[in-house]
Amino acid sequence: MEAIKQVRYHVVEASGLFEPDSTLLLSGCADAPLRPGDRRLVVIDSTVDELHGERITRYFDHHGITVTLLPLRADESVKRWDLVTDVVDAMNDFGIDRRREPVIAIGGGVLLDVVGLAASLYRRGTPYIRIPTTLVGLVDAGVGVKTGVNYGQGKNRLGTYAPAVATFVDRSFLSTLDARHLANGLAEILKMALIKSAELFGLLEDFGPLLIEDRFQGSTPALETAARRIVSEAIHLMLEELQPNLWEQCLERCVDYGHTFSPTIEMEALPELLHGEAVTVDMALTTVLGRMRGDVTEHQAQRVLALMDRLRLPLWTDVLARPGILDGALADTVRHRDGQQRLPLPVGIGHHRFVNDVTPEELNAALRELDAARRRTGQDIGPVAGLVGAGEAA
Amino acid sequence: MEAIKQVRYHVVEASGLFEPDSTLLLSGCADAPLRPGDRRLVVIDSTVDELHGERITRYFDHHGITVTLLPLRADESVKRWDLVTDVVDAMNDFGIDRRREPVIAIGGGVLLDVVGLAASLYRRGTPYIRIPTTLVGLVDAGVGVKTGVNYGQGKNRLGTYAPAVATFVDRSFLSTLDARHLANGLAEILKMALIKSAELFGLLEDFGPLLIEDRFQGSTPALETAARRIVSEAIHLMLEELQPNLWEQCLERCVDYGHTFSPTIEMEALPELLHGEAVTVDMALTTVLGRMRGDVTEHQAQRVLALMDRLRLPLWTDVLARPGILDGALADTVRHRDGQQRLPLPVGIGHHRFVNDVTPEELNAALRELDAARRRTGQDIGPVAGLVGAGEAA
Repeated sequence: MEAIKQVRYHVVEASGLFEPDSTLLLSGCADAPLRPGDRRLVVIDSTVDELHGERITRYFDHHGITVTLLPLRADESVKRWDLVTDVVDAMNDFGIDRRREPVIAIGGGVLLDVVGLAASLYRRGTPYIRIPTTLVGLVDAGVGVKTGVNYGQGKNRLGTYAPAVATFVDRSFLSTLDARHLANGLAEILKMALIKSAELFGLLEDFGPLLIEDRFQGSTPALETAARRIVSEAIHLMLEELQPNLWEQCLERCVDYGHTFSPTIEMEALPELLHGEAVTVDMALTTVLGRMRGDVTEHQAQRVLALMDRLRLPLWTDVLARPGILDGALADTVRHRDGQQRLPLPVGIGHHRFVNDVTPEELNAALRELDAARRRTGQDIGPVAGLVGAGEAA
Repeated sequence: MEAIKQVRYHVVEASGLFEPDSTLLLSGCADAPLRPGDRRLVVIDSTVDELHGERITRYFDHHGITVTLLPLRADESVKRWDLVTDVVDAMNDFGIDRRREPVIAIGGGVLLDVVGLAASLYRRGTPYIRIPTTLVGLVDAGVGVKTGVNYGQGKNRLGTYAPAVATFVDRSFLSTLDARHLANGLAEILKMALIKSAELFGLLEDFGPLLIEDRFQGSTPALETAARRIVSEAIHLMLEELQPNLWEQCLERCVDYGHTFSPTIEMEALPELLHGEAVTVDMALTTVLGRMRGDVTEHQAQRVLALMDRLRLPLWTDVLARPGILDGALADTVRHRDGQQRLPLPVGIGHHRFVNDVTPEELNAALRELDAARRRTGQDIGPVAGLVGAGEAA
C-alpha cells in the first residue's frame, strides 16, 4: 500500500490583527476564512487573556463571531497530558465540527504545542489556527508542525506532526512581554543565525539588546525595520529548513542545533530555565566545543558568548555540574536520531556541520572551559550584563 | 508552505508465522527486517499470551531475538488513555530506538489501536508492526491506518492516522478464538460485502457459518479455499477503498457503512456489544431503511438479516429503544462528517449510495420495522440460530 499526502499551511504577517477594523483574521488566509455568524472555540493563555482579552473579545463581537473562551495557564511545568484533556473537554462541550470550526490558539509556545496536540488527536485531526503571543511562539513554535507534551522526564516525549491551517504573526502582543521572555525568543533566532546566517547574527549584534528594550514595537523607523527584518528572516530561514524535511525523515537537522543537550537540561532544571535559555546553554557549550575543534575561532566564540550575554541569556546552569548529565542527554538524543549523534556543530558564524564522534572526555573538557568562560563574564549568579569584551561585539 | 509525504506499508500473508523455522517475520517484509541479535518490545494481549505466549517466546529465542514482553488486558471497556501510557512507559523503560526498533503488537483490534496510538505519539512517531490475532483485527484494524482510544462517551474520539510498517496476517491465531469473536470479525467482512461485493456476500452465505465452526483453520480443502478467499477478498476490498483516501480527505467513505449509528450504540451499550455486533445492528437498521426507500428489495433485505442471524450476529440491542438515541448518534456523525450526513446506504446487495436527507421520522419508522423483524427471527433475547426463512439464504 502506498499513498501520498499533501500538506499546506500558511504563515501570515499580520500586524494589528485585533485592531477593530482589521480583516486579516477573517480573510487573510484563504484556507481559514472566518465569516460573520460563525462560532469559534478560542483557547487563550490566561496571562494573555488578562492583558489582551478585552480587545480580543471586542474584536470578535464587532465582527459577529460568537466565541467560547477557554483560558489556560500554560507553561513548561504544566505542559502535560492533563492540559491536553482540558482542551479536549472544551472541544467536546463545544460540539466542535470536525472540519469547519478550527480551534483558535492564542498564546506562547507551550499553549500552541498543547492545543496543536489536542486538535491533531481529536477525531484524528481537527483544524486549528495559531496566534503566537511570545517571540519564541512567533519564530519557532508557531512556524513548524510539531506539537507535544512532556512525559515523565522526557521533553515533548509525546506529540504529533500537525501543521496549523494558518499562523498569524502579530508583533503587537510582544508589547506586554517581559525582557526575559523576549530574550527567550531571541535564543531561537540566534540559533538560526549561528547555523545559517552571518547577516542575521550581525543584525542581532546591532539591534538585539535595543529590540528587547523596545519590545519589538518599532518605536523608531530603524527599530521597526530591524524588528521586521529579524522576525521575518528567522521565520524564513526556519521554513526553508522545514520544507523538504517536514516529518524529519532526514535526522540531520541543523535546526536541532542547541537541541542536543537542552531537552535534558531543560527538564532537569525545571522550572529554572525557559526553553530558549536551555537552548542557549547548549549552544554556549557547543560553541566552545567548536572552538576546541578549530571550527570556530577564539574571536568568533567570544563574539557568540558576548552576544548571548548581551541578550540576557544564560551561558550556564548548575544542572551542568551534575555528574553524567551530558552523557545521559547525548545518549537520549542518539536514540532520538536513530543510533547516531548527528550533532550539528557551528563552523564559524552562520555555518554548521554534523559530527558523530563527540566523546565524554571532549564534553568534559568543553564543560570546564565553558565554566571558566562564564565566570569571566560574571555569569556565575545568573544572566547579567557587563561581559568583558562585550563592547566589541556591538 | 507546501510539502508532500509519502506513506508505504505492507500487509503480508503469513500462515504459520511463529512456526519455529518460518522466516516470514524476519524477512517477509523488506521494510521491517528482524536480525539475530536484535531486541524488540512486544506488546501482547494477555489472553493471547496465555494461549500462544510459549510458542511465540520460543520462536524469538530460536532466532536469537531478545524480547521484552508487555502483556496487556485490552478490550473495549479499557480502551482509554491509561492503556496508552502503559505502552509508553514500557517504551521508555526499554529505551526504544526511535527508528530502528519497531514495537511489535500482537492482539485484537483494541490492542492494535492502542499500541498504534502510543507508537505514533512516542517521539512523534516510532515504527510498529501489527500481528492481529482476531478476525476483526485481520480484516479491519490491522489493515487500515487508524489508531485511537475512547474518550468520555466518544468512541475513538482521540487518535491518529499512523500505518504500521507491516501487518502479518496469520489465520492460525483464530484457532483459539471463540465463536462470538469470529462472528465479530465476520461483521466487518459482511460490511465490505454489502457495499462492494455480491460475490463476497455469496461466499459468506455459503461458508460463513461453517467457517465459524472450523475457526478458519481449513480442515477440508473447500474450507481452506473459502477461508483464504474470504479473508483476502475482505482485505483487498478494504485496501482498495483506503488507498486513494487514506487520511479521509473525502468524507464520503463507503467503508463507514455500519459506522453511522454504531459508535454511539457501542459506547452506550458497553460492555454488552462487541464492535462488530454494534456495526451489525447499524447495518440491520440501514438495510431496513434501504428497503423502505426501495433501494433494497424485500427478498434482499430478508437474505441480509437472515445471514446476520446465521452468523450469530445481533440485529438489535435494547439501547435502540432509548429515546433520541439515533438522532443523537446521527448528529454526532454529522459533526464528524463536516456538517452533512454522507450516509452510505445499501443499494441491492454489493452496492451503495450516499444520502443526506434521513429524518428522525424515517429513523423511527425503520426502528419499528427492525424491531418487528428481529422479533420474527426470535432475536429478542440476543443472537440465536433458527431464523425463519434463513434456510433459503444458504
